[in-house]
Amino acid sequence: MRDRSNRSDRRPAKPANWPPTRPPSRPTGKPQRGGHQSVWLYGRHAVLAALANPERRIERLLATDEVARRHTAEIAAACVKAGRTGFSPITVSREELNQRLPEGAVHQGIAALATPLEEPALEDVLARCPESALVLALDQVTDPHNVGAILRTAAAFGVAGVVTTERHAPAETGVLAKSASGALEIVPLVRTVNLARALDQLKEAGFWIYGLDEQGDVALGQVDFAGRVCIVLGAEGEGLRRLTAEKCDRLVTIATSQALAALNVSNAGAIVVYEWARRQEK
Amino acid sequence: MRDRSNRSDRRPAKPANWPPTRPPSRPTGKPQRGGHQSVWLYGRHAVLAALANPERRIERLLATDEVARRHTAEIAAACVKAGRTGFSPITVSREELNQRLPEGAVHQGIAALATPLEEPALEDVLARCPESALVLALDQVTDPHNVGAILRTAAAFGVAGVVTTERHAPAETGVLAKSASGALEIVPLVRTVNLARALDQLKEAGFWIYGLDEQGDVALGQVDFAGRVCIVLGAEGEGLRRLTAEKCDRLVTIATSQALAALNVSNAGAIVVYEWARRQEK
Repeated sequence: MRDRSNRSDRRPAKPANWPPTRPPSRPTGKPQRGGHQSVWLYGRHAVLAALANPERRIERLLATDEVARRHTAEIAAACVKAGRTGFSPITVSREELNQRLPEGAVHQGIAALATPLEEPALEDVLARCPESALVLALDQVTDPHNVGAILRTAAAFGVAGVVTTERHAPAETGVLAKSASGALEIVPLVRTVNLARALDQLKEAGFWIYGLDEQGDVALGQVDFAGRVCIVLGAEGEGLRRLTAEKCDRLVTIATSQALAALNVSNAGAIVVYEWARRQEK
Repeated sequence: MRDRSNRSDRRPAKPANWPPTRPPSRPTGKPQRGGHQSVWLYGRHAVLAALANPERRIERLLATDEVARRHTAEIAAACVKAGRTGFSPITVSREELNQRLPEGAVHQGIAALATPLEEPALEDVLARCPESALVLALDQVTDPHNVGAILRTAAAFGVAGVVTTERHAPAETGVLAKSASGALEIVPLVRTVNLARALDQLKEAGFWIYGLDEQGDVALGQVDFAGRVCIVLGAEGEGLRRLTAEKCDRLVTIATSQALAALNVSNAGAIVVYEWARRQEK
């Protein structure tokens, strides 16, 4: 295990092999999150953010009469931002929306059928990373509500990207987009077949890898957050997989005061991201 | 608005009217959360914590054969802790559990039919509060997943209690208990008819009231967390109600770096609780 306090072991800001020269893992065109099938997005924030994102193709926009009228200006502004012209919602009843969307979807009277976002390659995300950056890696976090909340916090604090496993992670669905409340359009979400290999790539790009683990030996308050940092969050209950933990430079723990020490994974992520952002200000 | 930096205005650690002498608002017996009807709890953490809580009456404990065998020792230990003797699960099939519980319930092969917890009075919670304490107040936070996650973080960091409104807040249900992952048994959850009045009671007990608000004028990092502190979280989207905001001594904001500034309410709560706990250590 490398010791960051030993400054001679400190990663150079720009490693010799930077930028990485390995070819993109999928050379034939850019794949899209969750395949090429269009997906129903719903909820005001999620739909307005998708409308404002020029990288989304919106096939249909549905809204109740009330929502279409009350949010005319916001819908128009979002369309202008993405260069969409002559675009206005088809008004439908609340019941029609209920029927079209998954049961229990909290659609707030608006939904859009959109193409999935292009899936960025890790290389591209790394190439855009500043010298001080935080990347989150999610090791088989499956609940779309949690991943959505993590994306939202990541967007709020300027996290450079979120890396998930391709399997055992939510696809780009309405639930994920709704929970992300627009953040899906802002934070690059990278899906990787092999998380351990992605962590190696991050190391090559000068990142220090910290795994969040109840058994960790470094308190969050003691982590050196200078430079490029990746924090890995494990699945609830299971925690980090063995191979993932082995790839980490250090295992970090959030000091809790009580017997019930396990936090919801998105809450743990929020604490980590906040602590990172707080220390950037100094 | 009172100014805490003016030390002469600082609340005495023990106000003259402490302990409060007002009679409990409901004098005839202790009410129970969500009425007296028994509730199905499910999920390993939620059920084991309920079993270990002597204040719960468990009417029935169901588990799949596999879970009953794999967790025999944990179930027995929880029962011993609560003084339950001769108690063992009725083994059922996974399908029977699916049928008995709400659709989509992630029961992990175990469920218990339990009486709701006795609802503590705010007076009782305040009477047990140490001189340094954090209480969270939730102003119409309705999503049980969020309230559950907040309870879990509250339990992990030793928050003295969580106060919610009686209306526009989730009842004690399986979803809430599952999301709280055992924390419902640890953190006093007070339901109040009138949140503004509860905030007055907290003030009388020496608490400073901070409302979390995107428009707040104090950064979280600048808040004086000494002594007794209550932080009020508003509903997502809506934020704090006007009357609630007016009751706050100060409105506090979490500095976010990006356009998308709104955090999931449980993530915002986690950041606030972490920051409070971090500063207690100093």
